Amino acid sequence: MQAIEYILPDSNKTLEDISLLSSIDKEVLYGSLGDLKIPVSSDAETPFTLATQAVLKLLKSNCIDTKKLDYIIYASSGVNDYQIWSPAAKIQKIINADNAFCFEISNGCNAFMAALHLVNGILNIENPGSALLIMSDTLSKFIDYSETENLHLLSFSDGADAVYIDNYSNKNLLISSALVTDGAYSDVVKLSYGGVFEYNAEKKSNSKYMSVNLPDESRESFYKTLINNYIHVIEKCIVEAKLKTENIKYFLLGRNSQKVLDAVFKYFLVSPDKILTTQLLGHVGSIDVAITLKICLKKSLVHSGDYVLIASTGSGYQRN
Amino acid sequence: MQAIEYILPDSNKTLEDISLLSSIDKEVLYGSLGDLKIPVSSDAETPFTLATQAVLKLLKSNCIDTKKLDYIIYASSGVNDYQIWSPAAKIQKIINADNAFCFEISNGCNAFMAALHLVNGILNIENPGSALLIMSDTLSKFIDYSETENLHLLSFSDGADAVYIDNYSNKNLLISSALVTDGAYSDVVKLSYGGVFEYNAEKKSNSKYMSVNLPDESRESFYKTLINNYIHVIEKCIVEAKLKTENIKYFLLGRNSQKVLDAVFKYFLVSPDKILTTQLLGHVGSIDVAITLKICLKKSLVHSGDYVLIASTGSGYQRN
Repeated sequence: MQAIEYILPDSNKTLEDISLLSSIDKEVLYGSLGDLKIPVSSDAETPFTLATQAVLKLLKSNCIDTKKLDYIIYASSGVNDYQIWSPAAKIQKIINADNAFCFEISNGCNAFMAALHLVNGILNIENPGSALLIMSDTLSKFIDYSETENLHLLSFSDGADAVYIDNYSNKNLLISSALVTDGAYSDVVKLSYGGVFEYNAEKKSNSKYMSVNLPDESRESFYKTLINNYIHVIEKCIVEAKLKTENIKYFLLGRNSQKVLDAVFKYFLVSPDKILTTQLLGHVGSIDVAITLKICLKKSLVHSGDYVLIASTGSGYQRN
Repeated sequence: MQAIEYILPDSNKTLEDISLLSSIDKEVLYGSLGDLKIPVSSDAETPFTLATQAVLKLLKSNCIDTKKLDYIIYASSGVNDYQIWSPAAKIQKIINADNAFCFEISNGCNAFMAALHLVNGILNIENPGSALLIMSDTLSKFIDYSETENLHLLSFSDGADAVYIDNYSNKNLLISSALVTDGAYSDVVKLSYGGVFEYNAEKKSNSKYMSVNLPDESRESFYKTLINNYIHVIEKCIVEAKLKTENIKYFLLGRNSQKVLDAVFKYFLVSPDKILTTQLLGHVGSIDVAITLKICLKKSLVHSGDYVLIASTGSGYQRN
């Protein structure tokens, strides 16, 4: 990764705002989510407008020849300004990246990790080249604050990242990556709005918001699976990179609920100051980890030769 | 590619049906699209139900150890049963592919080519493995037959493919691939339904169908760019594979309008019997080329050592 920039909407919601909207006690929210001041998009701010701003910011602060870009990959939770429409191709035109191949990938809040893994596959010694990764999500639009049982959803915020990667230089190398999916829980969160199922049913009014289908009796096994898989990929990644936990300078993790983060800390016996997340910003969809990495680089917390581990629910990787 | 299966809905529309629905003369439709008997989905048939049927058909007729699958990639035009929901993960659970990593890619009707290119990158000598590619689209649901100015859209039909790929064997190898995007035309076709833009505007009733925004004065340059890019990637692909046009036994092409297909035939001086498309079935979204390849293999039209070129609007590749 040669360069990262991110954009967050100006408006925000504090823990107090969320408490008022959800009628959930502020202390209860704090216990589950920590303190929050989450960036939330206005109606005029869409996944595409935020993504475009992040890309233009990246191009302004870095010397990138857009004509030489081989790939523009737009990675997100999958809700775009329109359907059957490519935000990657639209941005290609704006930045004159005439020779790029553009496509979208969806992988929920893990989309950045999935995109990195793919780019590492398609750009290699035999196929050198460059890619622009764009992550953009406005998940707060799809949260019904008055009806959300799953507190973690109340921390969902909005933003966009633009990341430039090439394999001509050896800056911020991806050393190993590991990914896993458990489809048993694929129906836990979904948005009926915009799906074929809703289209057929013609029941549009009831489906504006993400629904959470996690009965109390499944809650424990859901979190157990999530935590086990999280630990599994992080461990696999460290082993594949021929490293040990103590070699990792920082763990940059997606902004999960405190319960999930605590389980990871405990397993790897990492001191809390080695763990970095988006904290106050909440869970910015697929944007979290690239924001934290950018802050980490900007503050010169890492130097040449250092290893950091980057992970979001479902994946992990290292760079030096 | 070790195995391919596909599923088409039982219901269909003939050229006569489309003529009645669109009030466009049958001869005019025939001149632009050729004869048609297109499979169209019922309300109960969704991208996910068709995809699942295709996958189960693939597993029934081939010996595939689903526990050993490394990737499940769902590639389509991007409209799923729900949003923020992974059809790939849902299918993972159904087929017990416990060790797979699942995600979606969107690349319009070129999604199969994009997925093949990615799989060829992530599965390599250093990272051997296997992938299940699933293509599924029900684009006919989004066509307003009474309002469609672009005749090509009237040939859009529904279906799903399942393709198994590993790099342990050397059956049906991908030798080269080439892809290009021109974002200048990214707004030509889009579906407001389900997009954030529509969500904000709250204007749901007017946006059930794909809109085509191709003014008469842009039509010529649009087709010129499309045809030039199509020829460019096919040629690039043949050159990269160190082959000549006469080495290619068959050209398996997406079901474009006759105008686009004719331009390709003429440029490469290929005799019409070497060109295979889905013909009567119309343009089955991202499903076209895998259907034609399956039919080609089933009829033993190709043998060990043969080269075929597979291309859809925007990409091409060869296999032996």
